[in-house]
Amino acid sequence: MAGSTPSLDKIVALLRRLPGIGPRSAQRIALDLLLRKRELMPQLALALQQAHQAIRHCERCNNLCEDALCSICSSGRRDRTILCIVESPADLLAIEDSAAYQGEYFVLMGHLSPLDGIGPDALHLDLLEKRLAEEGLQEVIFATNSTLEGEATAQFVAALVPEGLRVTRIARGIPMGGELEYLDRSTLGRAVQGRAALES
Amino acid sequence: MAGSTPSLDKIVALLRRLPGIGPRSAQRIALDLLLRKRELMPQLALALQQAHQAIRHCERCNNLCEDALCSICSSGRRDRTILCIVESPADLLAIEDSAAYQGEYFVLMGHLSPLDGIGPDALHLDLLEKRLAEEGLQEVIFATNSTLEGEATAQFVAALVPEGLRVTRIARGIPMGGELEYLDRSTLGRAVQGRAALES
Ligand SMILES: [Zn+2]
Ligand SMILES: [Zn+2]
Repeated sequence: MAGSTPSLDKIVALLRRLPGIGPRSAQRIALDLLLRKRELMPQLALALQQAHQAIRHCERCNNLCEDALCSICSSGRRDRTILCIVESPADLLAIEDSAAYQGEYFVLMGHLSPLDGIGPDALHLDLLEKRLAEEGLQEVIFATNSTLEGEATAQFVAALVPEGLRVTRIARGIPMGGELEYLDRSTLGRAVQGRAALES
Repeated sequence: MAGSTPSLDKIVALLRRLPGIGPRSAQRIALDLLLRKRELMPQLALALQQAHQAIRHCERCNNLCEDALCSICSSGRRDRTILCIVESPADLLAIEDSAAYQGEYFVLMGHLSPLDGIGPDALHLDLLEKRLAEEGLQEVIFATNSTLEGEATAQFVAALVPEGLRVTRIARGIPMGGELEYLDRSTLGRAVQGRAALES
């Protein structure tokens, strides 16, 4: 654009390809960097290069890591009897953020989606079967998304779990703070079906 | 965080310092880069480095540029008889985006703000006075923000304009699509005072 510069236009064009960043906010971010946070530019450039080179997948659970094993698989303080299967690292981090889980994870890096041509080959099931065969495992929790694809993926992958292990699904129901009149029918129906004894 | 990696944490921490990016969206952007747009990471790193090194200020109008003069000052197709004074490159780009102006600009890179210790020294007035002394200039438009600081800045800088030049202020009034009942009193008051003949 007139009044801009080629380097500025380039940064704006790249930022626009990131999630949640429209043309206006891409320009605002680029100008904020150039005019007020210039020292951040080489720092961010270096961090991007380092992450691009260093980050790969854990050889045991498929989570993101920088060594052979991720920080959870190498921690030694996690409960190895429970394995939680998630679709993505973002889902893993959300569960960690809840501080409600001390077991381990397996990250599928996707879900089955026949319409998009995503079949079982994409889900790293060889690695999962190795993990499922480890000694001491007692329970497998499916924490895939509550979408058609997430449910189908849980169903499909559950068939790989060896006999004798407990297989569970994270609870579906009304979200904390959720107001019934604004919830969709299927969430509410599932919440009624899954009712539990009132804690008092 | 457990389950994350040092390089990922570093990118997230840097992204959070950018405008409009909270912790959740910083993580979403970082994971999107790592998992789906990995080829963008070195491209963005390079663009940041290049912009950091190349971008400086136009020697004539103080806008951002990569050579001695910005793309507007070096265009040869702009009306040099009109000079529009703005606070920032973002304001300049917004006016360019409106396609309503063919003159030239001067970018103050800020506004007077005594409470924040920002005085006239910050506004590159030496450079502005050089521009104001150029032959052929006929009108100076003040397009500073319609804030206390922007108005005070326009008042202060207007005193530097040589006699004989027309001095104007961009119109204040109700925005296009603005509904009167939702506008603040001062905008509405200004719009009534500044009323013009109905175009038919
Ligand atoms: Zn791992
Ligand atoms: Zn210029």
